[in-house]
Formats: sequence, C-alpha cells, structure tokens
Amino acid sequence: MVKAGILGGGQLGRMLLQAAINYPVETFVMENDPECPAAHLCHHFIEGDIKNFDDVYKFGKSVDVLTIEIENVNEEALLKLEEEGLRIYPRPRTLQLIKNKILQKNFYKEKGIPTSEFIVTQNAGDIKQNITFPAVHKLATGGYDGKGVIIIKDITEVNKAFNLPAVLEKKVDIKNELAVMIAVNDKKETAIFPVVDMVFDPLLNLLNHQICPADLPEKIIWKAEAIALKVVKDLDSPGIFAVELFVDHDGNVLVNETAPRVHNSGHHTIEASYSSQFDMLWRIMLNYPLGNTENIMKAAIVNLIGEPGHEGEALYEGLDEILSMDNVFVHIYGKKVTKPGRKMGHITVLSNEKQELIHKANQIKHILFVKSINA
Amino acid sequence: MVKAGILGGGQLGRMLLQAAINYPVETFVMENDPECPAAHLCHHFIEGDIKNFDDVYKFGKSVDVLTIEIENVNEEALLKLEEEGLRIYPRPRTLQLIKNKILQKNFYKEKGIPTSEFIVTQNAGDIKQNITFPAVHKLATGGYDGKGVIIIKDITEVNKAFNLPAVLEKKVDIKNELAVMIAVNDKKETAIFPVVDMVFDPLLNLLNHQICPADLPEKIIWKAEAIALKVVKDLDSPGIFAVELFVDHDGNVLVNETAPRVHNSGHHTIEASYSSQFDMLWRIMLNYPLGNTENIMKAAIVNLIGEPGHEGEALYEGLDEILSMDNVFVHIYGKKVTKPGRKMGHITVLSNEKQELIHKANQIKHILFVKSINA
Repeated sequence: MVKAGILGGGQLGRMLLQAAINYPVETFVMENDPECPAAHLCHHFIEGDIKNFDDVYKFGKSVDVLTIEIENVNEEALLKLEEEGLRIYPRPRTLQLIKNKILQKNFYKEKGIPTSEFIVTQNAGDIKQNITFPAVHKLATGGYDGKGVIIIKDITEVNKAFNLPAVLEKKVDIKNELAVMIAVNDKKETAIFPVVDMVFDPLLNLLNHQICPADLPEKIIWKAEAIALKVVKDLDSPGIFAVELFVDHDGNVLVNETAPRVHNSGHHTIEASYSSQFDMLWRIMLNYPLGNTENIMKAAIVNLIGEPGHEGEALYEGLDEILSMDNVFVHIYGKKVTKPGRKMGHITVLSNEKQELIHKANQIKHILFVKSINA
Repeated sequence: MVKAGILGGGQLGRMLLQAAINYPVETFVMENDPECPAAHLCHHFIEGDIKNFDDVYKFGKSVDVLTIEIENVNEEALLKLEEEGLRIYPRPRTLQLIKNKILQKNFYKEKGIPTSEFIVTQNAGDIKQNITFPAVHKLATGGYDGKGVIIIKDITEVNKAFNLPAVLEKKVDIKNELAVMIAVNDKKETAIFPVVDMVFDPLLNLLNHQICPADLPEKIIWKAEAIALKVVKDLDSPGIFAVELFVDHDGNVLVNETAPRVHNSGHHTIEASYSSQFDMLWRIMLNYPLGNTENIMKAAIVNLIGEPGHEGEALYEGLDEILSMDNVFVHIYGKKVTKPGRKMGHITVLSNEKQELIHKANQIKHILFVKSINA
C-alpha cells in the first residue's frame, strides 16, 4: 500500500482521511496536538511541529507521497525532500510562491493574470499620498484567516499599516466573490469544479453562505473559469487548488488569492460532486485517473463558526432541528474547544432549486449556534 | 462527547466510523486483529475477543452506547451490560433471537409473518420422507455468509444434513430477492429505505449486483415494505435492520432472514440516500432525529470479491479503468490479504436511468478483479 503523509491535522486533514477510507492507502499525519481533528483517523499519528525542519524532513522520509492541509509548513524541508525524490502535492516551489503575498501578486502580474492593482511596501513609510484609496494592506507572510490584512481608508489611517514587507492593493469594489477548485495530476491533466458563489452578508460583511454552481451571467462564469485555469497551469504543480476571485461592478474578474490545497470553498463537493475535492486529491496522489467534477445537485454551504463570548467545550445549539431538515448534511469537526470565530463545522444543503438552497442556508444561520457548555 | 463502542472491526465498522466523522462522538472499537479495516479509524482501538464475556463486558463498561457490526458476539455480556443500564443497539434479546435460526423462524411463525414452511431438526434423522423437497437445511447457530447452509434435493441426500439443531425450510422457487433497510430509534419511530433488488446471476447462482429502488410491481414493493416493517416492529428494538425477502413466482413475499445491524445490501445508501444506513445508526445512537431515507439518485452496487485461486496481498486489477468511469464510487475495505470469496470492497453506481445502472454494473463485473500480488 502507498504510504501517504499529511502535514497538519485540522478539519481539512480530517475530511481528507474520511475520503481516504475508500482507497488502499496507509495514512500518516503530523501535527503538534494529539487531540487534533485528524489525529485518530490515520494509521500513524506523529506528534511533531510542521514548522520545524527536522520534524518535517523525518516525517517526509517515512512516506511515499506527501501533502499539506495548511500552508504554514517548513518549506526548506519540503525542498530537500523533493530533491531526494519525494512526490509532494503541491510542489514546494509553488507553495513558496503562494505563501508569500508579494511573490504571489508579482506572479499574477508577470503572467498577465487579472488582479487588483498593487504596490509592494517594506514598511508603513512606503504608503504615500499618491496611492488610490481605500486600499488593502496584506502582510507578505504570516497572515491567516483574515489576520495580517487591514483596510486603509485614506492617508490619515497610514498609522495602522504594517511595518513589515507587505502588499498594498487597491480595494476592489466587489460585486461578487467566486471560488474555483481545480485538480491537476502529474500528467498535467486538469479537472475543474463548478464555480462557487461566496455570498456575503452586506451588513456584517461576513460570509453568509456559499452556493454552487454560481448563478451569474455565463460571461462572468467563463472568465472566472478561464482565469482560474490559467493561474493553476502557470503555477505548474500537480495538486488541488482553490482560486478565489472578485467580480467588480464593471464585470471585471480579478484573482484575489490562490490556495494550493483542499479548501473551505470546496466542502460542498463531498455530497454535491461525483468526486469531491478530497477524493480528487487522493486520486492525484495515488496516480488514479481524475474524477468527475460535475454536480449531482446544486449545493449550499453554511459554515459553523464559534459564537462571540463563548470559549470552552463546544455545545451545538439547534443541531437537532438541523438534523431533522431534509437534504441537509452536518459536518462537525470534532474540536473539543470552541472559540469566538473558530471554524467548528459546516452544513451542506442539496437541492435542484436555488431558492430552496438560499432559504435553507438562511434558516440554518438562524437555528444553529456553536456555544460553550460553560459560557 | 458521547463515547460509542463498536464490537467488531471489519468493513461495516470501517464505514460506520467514516460516517461518525461528521458527528461529535468519541469512538471505541474492539476486535482481535489490530490490522482490521476499522482499527485505525477510531479514537480507541481495544484488542479483544468479541466472543469472550470478560472482554465484551469490560469494553461495554468503558462506553455510553454500544453497537455491533457482526452478530457473533458474546450475548451474555451484552445482557449484563444492558441490565446495568448500557444502551445497546440492537437490544441483546433481539440479537439472541436473530442469531438462532430456530428462534428466528419461530418468531416469524408466531407473529404471522410470511416465511417459507419449515421444521426444526435436532439431527439428520429428523429429516423424513414426508418433507417437501428440495429443502434448505440451516444450522441454528454458527452459520455465516452462506456457511452452515446446504440444499437437500431429496431424501437420498439426507446424509449431507447437519447433525446439530437446525431449521429445514422448503426451498422457495425464487423469482426475486429483495432487501429492506429500516431504522428504529428509541422513541420507536421508524424510517424505511427504498427497497433493494438483489440481482442474481442465473448461471452462477451468485449475487451479480444490487439495484435500488427495486423496479418491481407496486404491489410487490408495498408487500415487501409492510412485511419488513412488521418484522422490525415485532423485534421491538431500536437500531438498524436489514430484512431480506424472497418473491416467488406466484407473487408471494416471504421473509428469508433479518440482520440487526448495518448490512451489505445497504451500502449504496452512502451516496444514494440523503442519510446513509451508517449515518442513520449514529443518529439513533446519539439521540438525533432520524434522517431522510429518500434516494438522491437510483443506485447499483457491485461487490468486490476475492478471485478464486488468489490468496495474499491484494491487487485491484482494473481499478484505474473503473475510476475513470463517471458516476462510479469505489470503496476498498483496506484488507491486507485477499482470499477466494472474501469481501474486499464494493462499487456504487449512480444514475437516473436503470438501464445505465445495469450496463455499468455488468461492465464493472468484467473489468475489476481482486487478485493477489504473488498469485
């Protein structure tokens, strides 16, 4: 049996291992927390630091093929392992490029891939009056899940800016946010999943739910698909990729960022696609043919986020009501402790009717809350 | 988190654990083989003998709720655990009744549930000339997967009969074999899955594939559903049940046997139903509402059985070709060693067209073979 390693043991690793159960593969996970969501679902759990060279190198030497479920891993170890012949998804050089927002933005620019205007800043002093405001300041490295990103409305707010290498982007006047998942195998064959519409709450400016396929004009969808495919081809690495895009009010489609791994925007594929994003990564790593990305049905996702003011053992308020709804699939990530804003699970809705998806997604938002037992 | 135990670590346990990943539950498995298909997919694997009183009792004392993935477990330990307050699915008394074919057949008779005519035999000498031949002789206990069952064509074959307590049934002139999965929760609410048609190869007399929903006259389907529901209600136990039925050439529907657990005839529900048989058992054990048993699409299953003449490390010949087929889902059970006739996996096909299901099922039978690496 092929020995496959995953760096990181969060919910993405958990769902990868859930998909691995269908295949003959021996699974290895490395993560520093032995109670992480993926720890009990692999053949071999190795307690270790994914940022540490020695830990990652040693782990890599024990497997035939390696992947990541988080970008924040030791790149040097991956480069050495690749040199020594290990198959790694994504390629370490592609991971390096993506992990650094300066390199990533420059890559889009060099390749002629539409993305928002930007300048590279080494410190706050680089932000001058002649910039188009409002702008978004993003740390080159170390940002995650919205951390390391701030909005600078005008020059008076320059004191908020990062004093570390960063990218300053013109803030896009966003009409829609889209995501496109693409699979690439070693033969450079690609399979593209239907485009996802990330629907934001206009008042809270938070992701409300996701709908797939995105119900937008064909021209926009085609642009999104073509641009995402170009990004992934130019990244020149096998693996699975999530390309996040903005659509502005003029119908321009711009790449926001790319993740070189399974991704939150593709979780509906577990039930909605013949081959899920997780299934697809196993097909790539195990040298099987790519799967069928078609939708079985339309789908929506609602993320389950830890409520503000609640920290401690998780309590899923309203779960019974959600489980009594038809066409609804619950995914709880098994994290022992909830924290405000922590991703604790997601709910998938299937329907052939877009209106039913939206209705149920909104219902779920009003019924299900992750609180703590001892609030 | 609820602590849930599974006695047995084969493919049924494996797929139960795959479904458990969606819920907040701490999983325990007991089985004597630490390399069994389910061993690496639970929080706690306990090496132990499921037939041994002390092992089962001790295991049961460590969990909040208990289930089985094989009937062949120590019943006395389960009865004592239940007396001491443990929730067990199915109830130990129901398991006892089902495990003994004499008790099971008498139960059908007493409850007025249609089943083939039978007599109870203590030894071969009980089989007399006045029996209607051909007949099927089934050992009361210890039979499994076709073992402990023989056909006696006429009185001259009586020397083949078992000299242990057994049931001698009139052989049904079978037109169709059906299976009905039913879920029952603690409140005695039931959910019935669409009827499955077990399609046999007329030449080999082996299961060729399964189709769901069964495409038979409504009257037959209604009878099958009504009879299966009566069986399960009369068994008076929460849990998940597979009722296997014969349809004869006169349109009579007769119960063959019942399994008080997740079952091979329900594997298509993983992809084909909103709530699978595995999902459903977790809902029951975790006190969640029952799920939606409707089919998302029609489905077929082909079982992957170890080829004759092949014993050793498994080789899945034709797997690449199967994985390049659309609408096809592969489930390999991760058994290290194949043996002739051993269940090594199954393949599910989804389609809205019955003809496509049959066509693909037959294709798969001609493409995919489980051989051994060193044949």
